[in-house]
Amino acid sequence: MLNVVKIGGNVIDSEANLDKFLKGFASLPEPKILVHGGGKLASEMAERMGITPKMLDGRRITDKATLQVVAMVYAGWINKSVVAKLQAEGVNSLGLSGADANVVAAVKRPPHPIDYGYAGDIEPEGVNGDFLMTLIEGGITPVLCAITHDQKGSLLNTNADTIASTVAVAMSHYTPTKLTFCFDKNGVLQDPADDNSAVERITKESYLELKEAKIITDGMIPKIDNAFDAIEKGVKEVVIKSWADIGEENKGTKIY
Amino acid sequence: MLNVVKIGGNVIDSEANLDKFLKGFASLPEPKILVHGGGKLASEMAERMGITPKMLDGRRITDKATLQVVAMVYAGWINKSVVAKLQAEGVNSLGLSGADANVVAAVKRPPHPIDYGYAGDIEPEGVNGDFLMTLIEGGITPVLCAITHDQKGSLLNTNADTIASTVAVAMSHYTPTKLTFCFDKNGVLQDPADDNSAVERITKESYLELKEAKIITDGMIPKIDNAFDAIEKGVKEVVIKSWADIGEENKGTKIY
Repeated sequence: MLNVVKIGGNVIDSEANLDKFLKGFASLPEPKILVHGGGKLASEMAERMGITPKMLDGRRITDKATLQVVAMVYAGWINKSVVAKLQAEGVNSLGLSGADANVVAAVKRPPHPIDYGYAGDIEPEGVNGDFLMTLIEGGITPVLCAITHDQKGSLLNTNADTIASTVAVAMSHYTPTKLTFCFDKNGVLQDPADDNSAVERITKESYLELKEAKIITDGMIPKIDNAFDAIEKGVKEVVIKSWADIGEENKGTKIY
Repeated sequence: MLNVVKIGGNVIDSEANLDKFLKGFASLPEPKILVHGGGKLASEMAERMGITPKMLDGRRITDKATLQVVAMVYAGWINKSVVAKLQAEGVNSLGLSGADANVVAAVKRPPHPIDYGYAGDIEPEGVNGDFLMTLIEGGITPVLCAITHDQKGSLLNTNADTIASTVAVAMSHYTPTKLTFCFDKNGVLQDPADDNSAVERITKESYLELKEAKIITDGMIPKIDNAFDAIEKGVKEVVIKSWADIGEENKGTKIY
């Protein structure tokens, strides 16, 4: 089963974590796609370059200067470093922004009521699944960064979680697909203080019970909602697990 | 005939020039590969980030901080901007560093007598011509930046002219290939003061005459030597022309 794996800043911000994760990822026997976020490096670079982050209602606005920095950091340094490291692990990988081979086309978010600048929203129809399948069938592992394009010549900053789930939904129309989100924790924990208390699986029914019992609360609810949304649209299962366990099949929380 | 086209800073440093060039490049009817250098942006970014360029005997040393900047600028912002703009012109393009699909493997330059740091040297055998042909046959235009990798996990800074000619030589073993270098001038000029005095063609014989007559001097000699070297190794012809004339077949100087 094709595995779409998403990693975030907790992996990317530490070279030791990234190297450990990539060794585990390389050991996965199934065909796979890696989607990576940006981590702290983009903010650090922007700061060093004297670019002040623009925030509105707690959300980042991607102006032209910020777009340039995120494209440089995500599509340049992080994406190419990950690809070079995977090549060294024997994984023939190919780094992609959404513009490359038109792999993820997005729509610039409408400027009302809030103008988020160069932020892109995506739909499964915007994913070039034909090309991704050609790569995978050719033994190549696509590595996607969170930069898309509007098909009119402009790059767009896009949420990496959304790219991962949208790509997984699109690929599920070609081949059975699962979606793996890598976190610091060992999954959805029954007891937040006990990292060995991961819920083994969550179904539609047990989700309601877990919410009623206040085991799943707050920030985890939209994540699980999104997971079930992806499953309704065709993804076979969503896994939430620790990045350190990527190579281990029976770790984490499975949602299906 | 496959056309490997190289552009440098004179095109990249100006968005107006880049847009004009890409329209002309998009109009080329033949299959093509674009190779781009970095321009001034990498130096500007390094300066804004407080990184002092390290020079030794007039040559730039690529230390780790510089490698990060050039990978960000070349493989990130420039490469992805070019790809997004080409997509908008209807050219299905794919941006590549040498690490992607192991398209250009390099060897880190030996540290003696001078340690150039993360600088990569390449050979035609390091070019993954199979993959580039698969892309071209699939109607995709590869866009290569001047970043390669050592197959051991590290990116390397590599001369864009060398990438263009080495890729052209490698591709000439698959399909008839020409190599086009885009400059500001209209070609090799008989009279440096007259931009309409481009030599139409240079052969091995006329090259000797042009050197004796001091029409070809100084900086142009290694370029023409490299052109003949590429031709000896399989490239059909090398063209030196103005980037503004990329869409016009009968402009510039042809070397064969």
